[in-house]
Amino acid sequence: MSLLPPVVGQSLQELDTPQLMLEQDAFEANLQQMQEQCLRAGVALRPHAKAHKTPAIAQRQIALGAVGICVQKVSEAEPFLEAGIRNILVANQLAGPRKAAHLRDLLTAFPDAEIGVCIDHDTQLAQLHQAVMGLGNRPRVLVELDVGQGRCGATDLNQAVHLAQRVIDAGLVLGGLQAYHGKAQHFRDPLLRREAINSVCKQVAQVRQALEQKFIFVPSITGAGTGTYALEAASGLYTEVQPGSYALMDMDYAAIGPEPEMRFRHALTLASTVMSTRPGQRVLDTGLKSMSAESGLPGLHGLNGWEVVGISDEHCVIRAQSREAEIDQPLPLGAQVQLIPSHCDPTVNLHNHLVVHQHGRISAVWPIAARGLSQ
Amino acid sequence: MSLLPPVVGQSLQELDTPQLMLEQDAFEANLQQMQEQCLRAGVALRPHAKAHKTPAIAQRQIALGAVGICVQKVSEAEPFLEAGIRNILVANQLAGPRKAAHLRDLLTAFPDAEIGVCIDHDTQLAQLHQAVMGLGNRPRVLVELDVGQGRCGATDLNQAVHLAQRVIDAGLVLGGLQAYHGKAQHFRDPLLRREAINSVCKQVAQVRQALEQKFIFVPSITGAGTGTYALEAASGLYTEVQPGSYALMDMDYAAIGPEPEMRFRHALTLASTVMSTRPGQRVLDTGLKSMSAESGLPGLHGLNGWEVVGISDEHCVIRAQSREAEIDQPLPLGAQVQLIPSHCDPTVNLHNHLVVHQHGRISAVWPIAARGLSQ
Repeated sequence: MSLLPPVVGQSLQELDTPQLMLEQDAFEANLQQMQEQCLRAGVALRPHAKAHKTPAIAQRQIALGAVGICVQKVSEAEPFLEAGIRNILVANQLAGPRKAAHLRDLLTAFPDAEIGVCIDHDTQLAQLHQAVMGLGNRPRVLVELDVGQGRCGATDLNQAVHLAQRVIDAGLVLGGLQAYHGKAQHFRDPLLRREAINSVCKQVAQVRQALEQKFIFVPSITGAGTGTYALEAASGLYTEVQPGSYALMDMDYAAIGPEPEMRFRHALTLASTVMSTRPGQRVLDTGLKSMSAESGLPGLHGLNGWEVVGISDEHCVIRAQSREAEIDQPLPLGAQVQLIPSHCDPTVNLHNHLVVHQHGRISAVWPIAARGLSQ
Repeated sequence: MSLLPPVVGQSLQELDTPQLMLEQDAFEANLQQMQEQCLRAGVALRPHAKAHKTPAIAQRQIALGAVGICVQKVSEAEPFLEAGIRNILVANQLAGPRKAAHLRDLLTAFPDAEIGVCIDHDTQLAQLHQAVMGLGNRPRVLVELDVGQGRCGATDLNQAVHLAQRVIDAGLVLGGLQAYHGKAQHFRDPLLRREAINSVCKQVAQVRQALEQKFIFVPSITGAGTGTYALEAASGLYTEVQPGSYALMDMDYAAIGPEPEMRFRHALTLASTVMSTRPGQRVLDTGLKSMSAESGLPGLHGLNGWEVVGISDEHCVIRAQSREAEIDQPLPLGAQVQLIPSHCDPTVNLHNHLVVHQHGRISAVWPIAARGLSQ
């Protein structure tokens, strides 16, 4: 059939749409900026691969200096291991014995892989212990702290110390502390973000101190995302940061700022085609099946005078902001428009590959190998 | 690796999660109820497959009496053609010449398939005509009317008549009129739905009359969804209806009613596992990567006293509504919970297969073969 995957060297105009696109120069600039900031702050960079789910991106991040990656699910780790990545933190608790068994299989199949996993409950540790008993390659176990998200993680100091002690008692390696404040990533006001991370650091420092008083060494303190990474990096407390969206950038993260270290370029877009026209309005062939919208409407890349007014299952409606805008940018039937997703993670998860482009030509097609791996 | 697909005969408790589930008895009851309603009203049923993207479901709908299916994109038609379905309406305009070329390839590969497609502009017709010239198997071309959605479709009577005349002049087969009021599907008030569809019917009747005055026969008038299908079916004007969600049912469609013909059962759920606990709260391993949330939070299936309070990329948080509820339903770590998606179409599009179950056992595993086919 004629639904062929895009080919290197094609022009963007030849693409069928919707098509998920990555602008190579913006992407490279984002990767380099983040790596430089981390180097300057003296923290390790462990980018979160849940944002891109693409082994080729993880390889590029590691080539530039990242120590490894995070993933959020055990199944998600597998395509990255297959692509040769050997240092992976599953920054989450494992739900149920089947996931612990899957982790055991990965540790067995990749005996040189260093895999970390989080806990916040004795039962998770017991299931993990039972699954990996007798293996040569054991997971590092991190104790997750609830530092303001109100979701997973130990809620008080005693529970955190208890869990760390239990990891050691079980003969497993304590990997350190996972402390991520997800909500703070999206606070628009920089002062609020600063206050939130100050409070996070106070809490994490208390746990570390309590552990050290019991002669329990904390080899790593890890967390942070694109919205606050510079604060954790400058804390003198965190040993590594886990930003993910910075590589791609969506509308939501572009709305925070204005600090220069938060400015990344929109590398990720969704190529769409005008499929229906009427005065002042165009309908694009892109909808909720190729772009998530729970964080709001997408933006328009490089198209002034038009705005997105609605998105539904299979359509996106844009309107001209003035008569002049429509004359300047007439967008006839068949014209290609680049949308900027409002939330990159669930948008990437809808696509099988990422079309990389530079100077109007396709430079690579990268499989989104972890798409749909949510178990 | 141990991430194996589910197997027929397994109990639900053995499943890894998140896992998209279809309860067979509820599904069958939904299919039969809809088929009976259409039979009684004397209209053909052409279920919209954009909701389920699953050839096994389309085959079952046709076995019960559906005349064919709708899809929304050309690429989406392909797995259904491969599964032997031979009457498909692409209920949408084709954006750009690549999609017209793909349609040509499908008509060539499946010479016994009857494929319809919509237009609302001369240019679409010209591209279509150029693509299918010389083929033995030609598409039926339907003129789409904008009947209140404000998106695609001819906006006035003259444009509709002009387009129908052009289809005939081009030597193509006029398939009829596509008239779908998407917004009206979700009006909560039954009176508002009735008023909207009355107005739709008035508009459609005028176009049909104008065409007949020019001796242009209108072989079909098609449209409607799960929220209004009974109104179009009873109109004496529509020859077929296109509901999709009724087979699965989501929270959004369950909120409309209260007419008995709108009552379908929740067949679609997402099996999830409790991965973190604290008093009054549980965190499930299901997030935006396995369930869309732009239409609101999911519901809980068969679980009283708890409510969903938040969903993020990889987590869903539920809270007990009282101390007693938590004692009644303690939901320990590892417990399985069934969520009801707020919007079935984009949720189905996140999964590779649908796990069909009956009496607590897996009875079939159906590939969601059109997942991700948005072009």
